[in-house]
Amino acid sequence: MWMLRLNMTDRSYKLEEVPERYKNLGGRGLTSTVIYDEVDPECHPLGPNNKLVFAPGMLTGTSAPTSARVSAGGKSPLTGGIKESNAGSSWAPALARLGVKGLIVEGQPEEDGYWVAKLAWDGEKPAVTFEPADAYVGQDLYDVFPKVYKRFGDKVHIAGVGAAGELGYPNSGIVYNDMNQGPTRYSGRGGLGAVMGSKGLKFIVLDADGAPGVEIANEELFKQGRGKMREALMEHAITKPKGGLNSYGTAILINILNEAGGLPTHNFRSGRFEGAADIAGEAIFETNKERKGKEIYNHACSPGCIIRCSNTLYGEDGEEIVSCVEYESDWAFGADCGISNLDDIAKLIKRCNGYGLDTIETGVTLAIAMDSGLLEFGDAEGALDLIEQMGKGTPTGRLLGMGSGNVAKAFGNPRSPTVKGQGMPAYEPRAVKGIGVTYATSTMGADHTAGYTIAPEILAVGGESDPLKAEKAKADLSRAFQKTTALIDSSGHCLFIAFAILDIESGFEGMIEEINGMLGTDMSADEAVEMGGEILRRERAFNEKAGLTKADDRLPEFMNYEKLPPHEVVADLSDEVMDAVYGEL
Amino acid sequence: MWMLRLNMTDRSYKLEEVPERYKNLGGRGLTSTVIYDEVDPECHPLGPNNKLVFAPGMLTGTSAPTSARVSAGGKSPLTGGIKESNAGSSWAPALARLGVKGLIVEGQPEEDGYWVAKLAWDGEKPAVTFEPADAYVGQDLYDVFPKVYKRFGDKVHIAGVGAAGELGYPNSGIVYNDMNQGPTRYSGRGGLGAVMGSKGLKFIVLDADGAPGVEIANEELFKQGRGKMREALMEHAITKPKGGLNSYGTAILINILNEAGGLPTHNFRSGRFEGAADIAGEAIFETNKERKGKEIYNHACSPGCIIRCSNTLYGEDGEEIVSCVEYESDWAFGADCGISNLDDIAKLIKRCNGYGLDTIETGVTLAIAMDSGLLEFGDAEGALDLIEQMGKGTPTGRLLGMGSGNVAKAFGNPRSPTVKGQGMPAYEPRAVKGIGVTYATSTMGADHTAGYTIAPEILAVGGESDPLKAEKAKADLSRAFQKTTALIDSSGHCLFIAFAILDIESGFEGMIEEINGMLGTDMSADEAVEMGGEILRRERAFNEKAGLTKADDRLPEFMNYEKLPPHEVVADLSDEVMDAVYGEL
Repeated sequence: MWMLRLNMTDRSYKLEEVPERYKNLGGRGLTSTVIYDEVDPECHPLGPNNKLVFAPGMLTGTSAPTSARVSAGGKSPLTGGIKESNAGSSWAPALARLGVKGLIVEGQPEEDGYWVAKLAWDGEKPAVTFEPADAYVGQDLYDVFPKVYKRFGDKVHIAGVGAAGELGYPNSGIVYNDMNQGPTRYSGRGGLGAVMGSKGLKFIVLDADGAPGVEIANEELFKQGRGKMREALMEHAITKPKGGLNSYGTAILINILNEAGGLPTHNFRSGRFEGAADIAGEAIFETNKERKGKEIYNHACSPGCIIRCSNTLYGEDGEEIVSCVEYESDWAFGADCGISNLDDIAKLIKRCNGYGLDTIETGVTLAIAMDSGLLEFGDAEGALDLIEQMGKGTPTGRLLGMGSGNVAKAFGNPRSPTVKGQGMPAYEPRAVKGIGVTYATSTMGADHTAGYTIAPEILAVGGESDPLKAEKAKADLSRAFQKTTALIDSSGHCLFIAFAILDIESGFEGMIEEINGMLGTDMSADEAVEMGGEILRRERAFNEKAGLTKADDRLPEFMNYEKLPPHEVVADLSDEVMDAVYGEL
Repeated sequence: MWMLRLNMTDRSYKLEEVPERYKNLGGRGLTSTVIYDEVDPECHPLGPNNKLVFAPGMLTGTSAPTSARVSAGGKSPLTGGIKESNAGSSWAPALARLGVKGLIVEGQPEEDGYWVAKLAWDGEKPAVTFEPADAYVGQDLYDVFPKVYKRFGDKVHIAGVGAAGELGYPNSGIVYNDMNQGPTRYSGRGGLGAVMGSKGLKFIVLDADGAPGVEIANEELFKQGRGKMREALMEHAITKPKGGLNSYGTAILINILNEAGGLPTHNFRSGRFEGAADIAGEAIFETNKERKGKEIYNHACSPGCIIRCSNTLYGEDGEEIVSCVEYESDWAFGADCGISNLDDIAKLIKRCNGYGLDTIETGVTLAIAMDSGLLEFGDAEGALDLIEQMGKGTPTGRLLGMGSGNVAKAFGNPRSPTVKGQGMPAYEPRAVKGIGVTYATSTMGADHTAGYTIAPEILAVGGESDPLKAEKAKADLSRAFQKTTALIDSSGHCLFIAFAILDIESGFEGMIEEINGMLGTDMSADEAVEMGGEILRRERAFNEKAGLTKADDRLPEFMNYEKLPPHEVVADLSDEVMDAVYGEL
C-alpha cells in the first residue's frame, strides 16, 4: 500500500512508501498520527498549512463485517484542535482496494476555483487526474451527485463537499455516497468540509476497477476472528437482523433517553420532550408501515454491513423523503428544536445533506437561535428557511454556519451547550454523568461517539453504571470507552459493533483476531486497547500545542447552576474528575 | 475611600473598607487585581459569575494634569481573557470624589430588564439608588443621554451601555459622557459593554455634589511632582498647547504611519493608503478651518487635561458631524476600509458612538467583511448600513457584532488581523516589529496602548528603534513598555503623558512624586515600574487559568507568509522572541 499526497497548490500528486511508523495504523490512528507528525498545531485551519487526511480503517476493504469506515482528519475550524470524523461508505473500501493507506491533501491554490481529483488503478498503482469542478459548485448535492456519476460512470465512489464547505463554515462536513448513489453519508463533525473546500478540492472520485484489493497477512486468523465477530453481531439484540437497530434505526434511542430524563429538549432546558413518541424510531417504523403498506426493515449504509441500521422515511405519497433519519439528527431538529413532526424533521435533514451541513451542529445551532429569540421553538418552517440561508451564504446563513458555540456568542447567550465550540449531541450530561465526562474531555469537543458511556449508563450494555451518580468512577469509565473507541475507530469497524462485542466476549476476541490476522501481529486485547490510548495521547498533545488546556475540558458553566428537569440535576462532577481522564491516561 | 459592590441579582449594594492589599492600587492595577482575586477564570463572561469592576486611577480626582481616567475591567467576551479598558471622562474624578476606590458590579437579575444605578453623597458616604431604565433601552445614545441629564440633572456624570451592550456583542464598549454631555468617551475594547448589559445595568449615574474629594497623603511632594509633570507636558512638541496633538489630534499619525509603510490598508493588504492625505489630522484641521473660517484647536475630553487632543469635525454647514475623530477610528474606517472621505468616516464614527460599538473593532470587522466579499472596499454607504444593522440587532448585525476574529471565521477567511480574537489597531506589525510583539503578547489581545513601542520605532520618542528590524531586542522593548504602561494605566494619567515623560526625565520623576505624594509612599521609579510588572503577572495568571496559552501569543499566520507592501516584509520574529516577553518578565 501507499501514502498518496495530493498537492492542491499545483494539482500534482506523489505516491510514497508507507513509513514503518504507519504500518500498523489505520483509520483514526493514521489520520491523527499524520496530523500530529506533519501539521503545525498553530496553523490556521483554512490556511495553506493545514492538511486533510483520509484513511480507511485497518480492516476496511476486507470481508470483515461492518467494516467499511473511512476516517477524515485535520485541524478543526470548529474546535481549533485535532479532528477525526469517520463515516461508512463504499468510498472507504474502494480507497483501500486502490492500495491507498493514507491520502494526504495539502497546499492551497492561489487562484479561486474548485477541482475534482480522480483516483484510478493504472495497472500497477493508483494514478490521479485533476479536472475543474466548475460544473458542480454552488449547487445542491442531490443535484450534483447524478452529474458526477454521469461524468465518471456508475461504478465510481464519491467524497466531497457541499455549499457549506465551499463557504468555509466551521459547520461543514465531508460527504460520501450511500448505496443508492445519494449524498447522505457524512464525516459530519468539526468542519472538515471547510478544510477540503479551502484547498479548492470539491470531489475525490474513486474508480477501483482492476485494483488488486487489500492483502491479509494471516488469512486463517483473520477468518477465525471474522467468524466470531459475525456471530456476535448476528446474536446481539441490538445488532442482529430485525433487531433493535435494523428495525427502528438509531432513533430507537428517543424513547429510551426520554424515559431516562436525558433527552435534551429546547436547547437543553429539559431532559424530556413531550413530542418524543411522535419522533421515535418506533414512530418511523409505524409511519413507513402505514404509508408503504408493509413492514420496512432498514438497509446498509455501506457494503458488508450486518447491522443495517440506515432507515428511510417515506412520505404520504410513498416516496422517500430522506434517508436516513439518525437518532442524532432526529433529536437535533426534533426535541432540541421542539419540532414533533417527522416529515418536517426529515425535510430539515435533507436540506443539511444537500448543503453539506452537520445535522447535529445545525440542530444545536437552531435551538440556540430559538433560545435567543430569533425564532420560536417548534417553528419548522422558520428552521427550513434558516438552513436554506446557510446553504446560500446570506449573512444570516453565515452567522448560523459558524457552529453552535460561535452562534451563542453572537446572541450573547451563555446557554451554549457546547464544548470546545462543538455542539453537544443527544444526551444530557447533567442526567447522564459519564457522557458529560466524555463531552468535556474528548480531544474532539462534545462528541458522544468518542466514549459512548451511554452503553452501560442507559442501555445496560457492557455492564451497568448509574447515570445520575456523580463519582470519580465516571472518569475511569469514560477513559476506558475513549481508549477502546480510538481502537475501533482505527479498525474500520463501525462503532456499533461495540454493542455486541461489549456483551459477547468472543466478539471482542474476534476483533482482535481480525486485526492480528490482517497485520500479521500478535497483540493481546490489552495491547490493542493501549494502541487506542496512544492515539488519544497524540491527539491530546496536538491539542495542547494548538493552545487547548484543561479550561477547555469543562462542561458549559450554565449547567453548573441551572437545574435540569425532570431530575432537577446540575452538572456536579468536579474539575478533578474531568482532569483525571487524561491525567491518568 | 471604599470598595462599593452593586449586586444586580437583587439590586442591593454594600460599602466595604478597602482591604490592605488594595490600598496602593488604582485604575488598571485595582481592576485587574479584583478580577484576579474574585472572578473564576473559567466562568462565562456573560453569566452571573463574571464581575465588572470600575476604578479611578490613583491620581484621579486630584489636580494632577491629564489624570481623569477610569479603568473598567472584567473577563472579556471577546478575548476570553482578562480585560482592562480605560477612558477619560468627568465620570472618573466624580467617582473618586465620591470616595469610591473600586466599584464592583456583580450578580445577574433573573428577570429581563435594565436598571439605572445612581450614586450620590449622603453626607457621610456614597449611597446608591436603583430605578428602572426602560425609558432608555434600545435607543441611540445621542438621544438617550439628554433624557438622562433631564432626569438626573445637568451636573451628573454618566457611564453606561448602548444597543451593542444590550445585545451582548463581543464588540461593545462602555460609554462615558464627554465635556459637552455627549456619549463619546469609551472604554471601547474587549466587549465590557456586554458584561455590563448582561447584568441588566444600563447606566451608572454619579452625582458628586457635596462629596469631599480625594485625600492626598503628602501634599507637598504631590505638588512638586505635579509641577514637573505640568512643565513636561507644556514643553514637549507633541503634548504642548498648539503642539501636535492639540492641533491635529491623534490623527496626526496618519501621514506618519503611511510614510513609514505601516498604515494597514484594505484589511492589512498594504502598509500604504492612497487616500492617506485626505483623512490625515492635517486634513481635519484644514477642513475645519475652511468650513468654520478660522483655525480650530482641539479640546479636552475630560477635566484638567493639558494635552487637549480631542477634535471635532465640522460639516460643510459648519455644524459638528462628530467629536472626536481619533487616529484609530479614522484609520479603521479610512485606510482599513478604503474610505477616503472624512465626512463619511465621521458619520461612521458617530453611528458607533450612538450604538456603543468599539470603532476599532467595527472598522476591522467591516474591512474583513470587505475582504470576504460582503461589500466593496471604499463603500461608505454599505458600511453605514451594516453598522445600523449592528445597532438594530438584525442577524447580519449580530454576525458583525461578534468581533473581528469571529467574523473572519464566519467568512472562512484566514486573513484575520486579530490576536486573541481582538482586531488589530492602526499599526502594521509586519512593518513595525515591536508593536507586533505587543499585539501578540499583551494580556489584552491586539492592543497598541498596551505597550506603545511606536514611540521609539516611529516617533523617535524615548529613544530610537528600527521598526523593520526583527530582533530579540523587540521583546525587551515591548516588555519595558508594557510594564510602564500598566503603571500609567493605574495612575489615572492618560497614556499620552508618555510622550513627554519618556523624553523629559523630570516629567517621569514628576509622575513618581505625584504617586508617592498621593499614597504617602516612597517608591523609586524602578519600584513603581515593577508595580506595573506585578499587574501584568496577575493578568497573565488569570489568562492562563482561563485557558490562554503561548499559542495565543502569536500574530495571525497569514502575516508569516503574505508579504506586505511597500516594504515587502513578513512577520519574522520567532516564537522564542514572543515567549521571551512574559518568560523574562
